[in-house]
Amino acid sequence: MFIRNAWYTAAWAEELGDAPLMRRILNEPIVLFKDKSGRVGALQDACCHRAAPLSAGRVVEAGLQCGYHGLVFDTSGACVHIPGQEKIPQKARVRSYPVVNKDKTIWIWMGDPEKADPSRIIDYPYHDDPKQWPHKFGCYHIKGNYMLMVDNLMDLTHVGYVHARTIGGSPSIHTGAKMETVPLDSGLKFSRWMLDSVPPPTYAKAYKFKGNVDRWQEFQYIAPSHIVQWSGAKDVGGGAYEGNRDNALQVRLIHALTPETETSCFYFWSVANGFNQDDPNTTEFLFNELKDAFMEDKRTIEAQQERLSELGEKQLVDIISDRARVHMRRTVDRMLAEERGT
Amino acid sequence: MFIRNAWYTAAWAEELGDAPLMRRILNEPIVLFKDKSGRVGALQDACCHRAAPLSAGRVVEAGLQCGYHGLVFDTSGACVHIPGQEKIPQKARVRSYPVVNKDKTIWIWMGDPEKADPSRIIDYPYHDDPKQWPHKFGCYHIKGNYMLMVDNLMDLTHVGYVHARTIGGSPSIHTGAKMETVPLDSGLKFSRWMLDSVPPPTYAKAYKFKGNVDRWQEFQYIAPSHIVQWSGAKDVGGGAYEGNRDNALQVRLIHALTPETETSCFYFWSVANGFNQDDPNTTEFLFNELKDAFMEDKRTIEAQQERLSELGEKQLVDIISDRARVHMRRTVDRMLAEERGT
Amino acid sequence: MFIRNAWYTAAWAEELGDAPLMRRILNEPIVLFKDKSGRVGALQDACCHRAAPLSAGRVVEAGLQCGYHGLVFDTSGACVHIPGQEKIPQKARVRSYPVVNKDKTIWIWMGDPEKADPSRIIDYPYHDDPKQWPHKFGCYHIKGNYMLMVDNLMDLTHVGYVHARTIGGSPSIHTGAKMETVPLDSGLKFSRWMLDSVPPPTYAKAYKFKGNVDRWQEFQYIAPSHIVQWSGAKDVGGGAYEGNRDNALQVRLIHALTPETETSCFYFWSVANGFNQDDPNTTEFLFNELKDAFMEDKRTIEAQQERLSELGEKQLVDIISDRARVHMRRTVDRMLAEERGT
Repeated sequence: MFIRNAWYTAAWAEELGDAPLMRRILNEPIVLFKDKSGRVGALQDACCHRAAPLSAGRVVEAGLQCGYHGLVFDTSGACVHIPGQEKIPQKARVRSYPVVNKDKTIWIWMGDPEKADPSRIIDYPYHDDPKQWPHKFGCYHIKGNYMLMVDNLMDLTHVGYVHARTIGGSPSIHTGAKMETVPLDSGLKFSRWMLDSVPPPTYAKAYKFKGNVDRWQEFQYIAPSHIVQWSGAKDVGGGAYEGNRDNALQVRLIHALTPETETSCFYFWSVANGFNQDDPNTTEFLFNELKDAFMEDKRTIEAQQERLSELGEKQLVDIISDRARVHMRRTVDRMLAEERGT
Repeated sequence: MFIRNAWYTAAWAEELGDAPLMRRILNEPIVLFKDKSGRVGALQDACCHRAAPLSAGRVVEAGLQCGYHGLVFDTSGACVHIPGQEKIPQKARVRSYPVVNKDKTIWIWMGDPEKADPSRIIDYPYHDDPKQWPHKFGCYHIKGNYMLMVDNLMDLTHVGYVHARTIGGSPSIHTGAKMETVPLDSGLKFSRWMLDSVPPPTYAKAYKFKGNVDRWQEFQYIAPSHIVQWSGAKDVGGGAYEGNRDNALQVRLIHALTPETETSCFYFWSVANGFNQDDPNTTEFLFNELKDAFMEDKRTIEAQQERLSELGEKQLVDIISDRARVHMRRTVDRMLAEERGT
Repeated sequence: MFIRNAWYTAAWAEELGDAPLMRRILNEPIVLFKDKSGRVGALQDACCHRAAPLSAGRVVEAGLQCGYHGLVFDTSGACVHIPGQEKIPQKARVRSYPVVNKDKTIWIWMGDPEKADPSRIIDYPYHDDPKQWPHKFGCYHIKGNYMLMVDNLMDLTHVGYVHARTIGGSPSIHTGAKMETVPLDSGLKFSRWMLDSVPPPTYAKAYKFKGNVDRWQEFQYIAPSHIVQWSGAKDVGGGAYEGNRDNALQVRLIHALTPETETSCFYFWSVANGFNQDDPNTTEFLFNELKDAFMEDKRTIEAQQERLSELGEKQLVDIISDRARVHMRRTVDRMLAEERGT
């Protein structure tokens, strides 16, 4: 049960080179490709002739060519060439999906094409500002429903347990955080402040803090599958809480969760560094630390999915830290109900 | 849904040595073995005592002995020995299947044993003529329905795409081939001539042609699962098209496709070399090139099967090059209908 | 279909250290752990909050802590700590199972806890007598129903075939053994004597016998899943059959078969050596030989399960050597029927 009328991240733009790229999205096999003019296409990954995957073919002048008998398709899905045959039957075409290449991201719309409004795509200008926000892209395949990974990001008390050795630090810092949650039409946002707290291992390695720090996490969830994050820390007394974040250690992330199947997803993330930007090692270091931390999440979610697949969710008990998570789930349930007209 | 009343290739004779050989055919587990007198047997691969696979046993004087508790079975499936027990119950037997060892091939009949007429087995004398037609045997396990591999061999326009770097050469040579198709009671035959064409990489490596060649492919399909092929090339002007194929580069192949399950099969092939027969390197070279080419087919068919398993065949569109393939499919459908009495 | 009201071996005590241990038993995911006071707990391996497996967590002062959001559970399954939350809801608990740590074995009761009577657990004092019976523990995961492995131990004629090169020796010695079977309320026991027989390879390597031996196998089956064994051999004329087993080569084994799923189980065994006890190499040698032999059983059972899963048991034919096996199966069927009240 997926929300279809939404823009999902299909790929980072840098993933799409000369070769086509296969990705299963909302349980449909999709081939992404860039034609010779640079236009991006997203087609059902099966030739209309004998169903060979088009992703095993190659990009030719006229479009994407099937590697089996040579049929060629353009980005609209129309067959434009059949070897040894003049006339191309009208029904010789494959399904195409709206795609947009924006902010270094390939966005795909899996629902009603009439409703695919590009203006509804998130703005994330940091990908276009490598000087101020140098960044790197990552992607994990996770054997878990995408919602489990959104859950994960909505309840940050997990950080002290799952990520104790990286971005976490002491659990009590997280459970004691000053949290403010604001519901939005499109999802919600929340901020968490850990004032006068011990910096976590990753932060302490990246920056010589004088002692304790004022640390923040600002998250915005845009339903159903994107989370924008701004996190950082500054020496106590530096005025971070009052709004002065100059010279603070800080990162901006976008997390995109794209369903592959009911029990698997792609976790796309990018890490943009807003501190010591001229030193590529700093960006690299922060990226690698977060990459390790997200691998910890991946393992946790995959183990959780195994149990949920077997035991279901009925017996589960919500706790206080679930507040944002529960709000998020209600938003998604409402979108699903609306889409089904129920 | 398989045609049962037909002779299938179960193994190359050379595969069957002193040890029993397990092979799943038409989705039944079969053990093939040669008893001490040289007679070949094909039994259901499960002991009638506790169902241990007989293929894990060994051939003893009296027949095939189960490796668990030592029961022995002859090629008819009758139990002929139970350790520590004088009387053998009548129902102590396993199912046996008609088998014939002919032309270096083990043929099996999976249908009604009453109808198993050995005279209906193809003659392929080249396996018995190693001087004139030195040859080698190959077998691939393919995760695809056997029909997909027959399809593949009925539409040779794929050769220019799938095998561009081996036996293919330029796609347009293949789509422009002069093709003649003759329906037969038992299937069909077709010939394809690529007159005055550039020799493909494999041919050019095997023979120093003066320039372009007259190239032929003669195929006979014997339903449901065998294809006999005669292919070759000769310098333009050598009279190949008129019938003079002396001193031409030429190969004879038999392709046998045996269903394992609905979505997998065994692809048996042999390559007999009809040129420069005294040099084993030539035969070896041609075999290896074709082995590589058939691996390309295997990959294509496996990818195709994945999509067909998910999406079905309903949306697919036939094209002009499908003519022989469509005829072949009709023949198979008719055989299936006849067998079912529908 | 499992017998639930029975004590199963969940683990060897030595397997349970500081970290929790996950094991699927009767198709339920279980986490075993030892709390800081040494008490053993067995809980459903899923946190009541978000279903993360507790086995991915760690043992803390108050009990077993979930690695996701830090909830802690005691051995009764009660949640005793929720980070950042004072009040613990009553329904915050996970299912627990009765466990007993006895004779170096962790015993688990998967049925009605009211009926879990520890006095029904087998006595196996040899694990507590390392001087007289030095021993080692082993465990194999077998992809086969646990009953197939019990079958295996109830029909020792397999020893001459499956274990010809280790503990077996000539098949005819086994089929000719003098066997006595005694039905018991709790199962059955049988003894087998191979008087004046050639010692099997394993025995001959462990001991310089003068020639033939009097060899015994005494088995007791305690339904549904434990077998206690006493085997050995002594030079002919040594009086073994009359009861004098001093200075004989002898081993005591316990075999515990614990269902994992309907088609897989854990095979726990221990080998206690009753000969040349002061030499650790003797114990080590015998253990390793039996380990190899049990690997032969594992392979046999896994192959058998594959066939049974496909073909069922209906066509199978019992033979004379099945007597103890058939009695064992009837006992188990009766227990199952009683448990179901049918």
